[in-house]
Amino acid sequence: VGWVADVSAELGETGRLEAFSDGVFSIAITLLVLEIKVPQPTQSGEPLAAALWRQWPAFAGYVLSFVTIGIMWASHHKMFMLIRKSDHNFRMLNVLCLMFVSFLPYPTALVAQYLREPAGRKTAVEIYAATFLAIALIWYGAWRYAIRDGRLLGEHVEAARVDALSRQYAVGPAAYAIGFALSFVSPAACLVWLGILALFYALPERRSTRV
Amino acid sequence: VGWVADVSAELGETGRLEAFSDGVFSIAITLLVLEIKVPQPTQSGEPLAAALWRQWPAFAGYVLSFVTIGIMWASHHKMFMLIRKSDHNFRMLNVLCLMFVSFLPYPTALVAQYLREPAGRKTAVEIYAATFLAIALIWYGAWRYAIRDGRLLGEHVEAARVDALSRQYAVGPAAYAIGFALSFVSPAACLVWLGILALFYALPERRSTRV
Amino acid sequence: VGWVADVSAELGETGRLEAFSDGVFSIAITLLVLEIKVPQPTQSGEPLAAALWRQWPAFAGYVLSFVTIGIMWASHHKMFMLIRKSDHNFRMLNVLCLMFVSFLPYPTALVAQYLREPAGRKTAVEIYAATFLAIALIWYGAWRYAIRDGRLLGEHVEAARVDALSRQYAVGPAAYAIGFALSFVSPAACLVWLGILALFYALPERRSTRV
Amino acid sequence: VGWVADVSAELGETGRLEAFSDGVFSIAITLLVLEIKVPQPTQSGEPLAAALWRQWPAFAGYVLSFVTIGIMWASHHKMFMLIRKSDHNFRMLNVLCLMFVSFLPYPTALVAQYLREPAGRKTAVEIYAATFLAIALIWYGAWRYAIRDGRLLGEHVEAARVDALSRQYAVGPAAYAIGFALSFVSPAACLVWLGILALFYALPERRSTRV
Repeated sequence: VGWVADVSAELGETGRLEAFSDGVFSIAITLLVLEIKVPQPTQSGEPLAAALWRQWPAFAGYVLSFVTIGIMWASHHKMFMLIRKSDHNFRMLNVLCLMFVSFLPYPTALVAQYLREPAGRKTAVEIYAATFLAIALIWYGAWRYAIRDGRLLGEHVEAARVDALSRQYAVGPAAYAIGFALSFVSPAACLVWLGILALFYALPERRSTRV
Repeated sequence: VGWVADVSAELGETGRLEAFSDGVFSIAITLLVLEIKVPQPTQSGEPLAAALWRQWPAFAGYVLSFVTIGIMWASHHKMFMLIRKSDHNFRMLNVLCLMFVSFLPYPTALVAQYLREPAGRKTAVEIYAATFLAIALIWYGAWRYAIRDGRLLGEHVEAARVDALSRQYAVGPAAYAIGFALSFVSPAACLVWLGILALFYALPERRSTRV
Repeated sequence: VGWVADVSAELGETGRLEAFSDGVFSIAITLLVLEIKVPQPTQSGEPLAAALWRQWPAFAGYVLSFVTIGIMWASHHKMFMLIRKSDHNFRMLNVLCLMFVSFLPYPTALVAQYLREPAGRKTAVEIYAATFLAIALIWYGAWRYAIRDGRLLGEHVEAARVDALSRQYAVGPAAYAIGFALSFVSPAACLVWLGILALFYALPERRSTRV
Repeated sequence: VGWVADVSAELGETGRLEAFSDGVFSIAITLLVLEIKVPQPTQSGEPLAAALWRQWPAFAGYVLSFVTIGIMWASHHKMFMLIRKSDHNFRMLNVLCLMFVSFLPYPTALVAQYLREPAGRKTAVEIYAATFLAIALIWYGAWRYAIRDGRLLGEHVEAARVDALSRQYAVGPAAYAIGFALSFVSPAACLVWLGILALFYALPERRSTRV
């Protein structure tokens, strides 16, 4: 008795967790565009093209944040090919992680607004880099929690695939910690570094690291 | 004749109800960030960090509302491990509940705006606490409706699990009624209490109450 | 050859159509809250409660639009218990219908803004009622298209259930046409009528009309 | 060992890719309405109807962008009736494509704002047309990537269906390249052309091109 409901509940669990996460990822990624404001027509007769050109930090921020969230989503997707169960703690770690993901439109707007203001630039980029670092850390913590003793893994998951993903995920916190450190030295270097990371993760995978 | 369609319709029912609810939860939770406004550069040369510091009620409101909606989602998810059917009335109760969930960005912005204004602070916190209370009450009503005579429960659901969840859900209206009452006495005490509730629900569950 | 792919494509078809529609319904319903603006603190020392009280058309519009979209979603859900296939034309009718559903936040904001302005009130309510009428008409057209010769119905759907839903859906265009006509006579009467319709659809169904 | 997990992971893959894409499509399409601003009551006593009438570029832009995104979604849906697997590169191409889809509310607002300003009109329409062209190009690239050697196609997909879709998708880049070229000659001609394309794709399909 109860067996059927239990099994299907168990199976259904990551389904809704994935659906909810997909929802937050896709909304956060789509809200980014709302932070790019249409320039108002000016009296001075400045051409629209020039006004748009001055907006380049907003466009650059859109691209960097969009690609980064897209990569996180793809990574989340990979994680759930191996994770097949969920429990209360894992769901809460996931909610915590999504809290920083859906916060991203704010630091993105901050960077877009202050990148050309010498006064606030550094603070804005620090907060932007800190948000990425927070996501990487919570993500890695959630993964470690899930694989301890195979707690939330599927039945027939090979240890080699888990280890490969563990190695890959361990890079994240280190890479974004470097980005965060760079933000205190040079905002420009920090953003270039974050861009390189996004490119690195987005580029075609070598076969050996493919999961 | 019609049996196949009926059964699959029955099975499909909570699927779409859950998908629609997941949509509303994930959007409401992600819209919260839109209420945090990027501070405009000032003439006075105030550092950006100071301007952001003054925004702390917006950040605190973001965290409190995000975690609370996240907990509600997790709770909704638990509920639908036991509920396997839906009918018109239950769907309408669900829509009513979601109406207050997706209203949350407004009272959150209200608290963020008025927390440092002695004049409006109390009214803002009262409305914030009232929204939480409304959600808890409708939620509990929907659950009682669903389990009466096992109306919408799955086939093989154990009575013990239903009772455990009933006990857990009965705490919500009482806890948020205390929060609402506190908002009339002291806005600060009310917010602390709502924070404690969020932490309490988010913390690891003891084994005995796990569902 | 190709049989397996065809069948699963056929089955998958309404799945994605429903998922996309659920997305639009849940986002449109959640965006409504963004149209309620937090009142700015005033110099005149007006209490916040009074400022909120003056906002009542925004709150009333939120409730009316939210409940109406919720009912449409529930109705869409019912429709797809019987409809099991989709084709290009039906998908395009669905996109057309969703175009007016996701437009709703705009006329809702229009009514909220102009309900207390004698000059624009009538125009605002006319547009609000026209949007509801357009949805009801396209909806009914899509349903007629889907059931002609059982084109998109599931395999074992009983004719009686289709007829019951046809009768129910035929009421919509008539009811919202009355609402649209009323908006030219009296904006207040129109809104009361739209409220009655929402209540009527949201209230518990009598057994005889249940689908 | 690992076989069950691998197969279900493989099957699950396009499921989440489709869910994430559906999310972005449905959010981008619904955010369009936020770019239509409610006109403020004026002192001059201009009737609301006249103020709304002056907003016609915003309404036209809403309709054109909504229908175009709706068609893209329907097309994405068709594509995934044949594509049954995904890999890292395909997911990244998909994220790139969605980056331009979810950018659409911005050029739509740009056109709505500048269509009646002789100075900025051409620039605004150029950016609008360029966004559509970018989507069509990435889309076509993703499709070519997916079908090379049947890489990501389902098991029993008929070559004739793949070829039919290839022919259909090849039209997109050419058609939108014409639109982009037209935007440099005449913004009006460009928008009429984009409208014709939307109508052409939305109209009932002839049986021979149906997939």
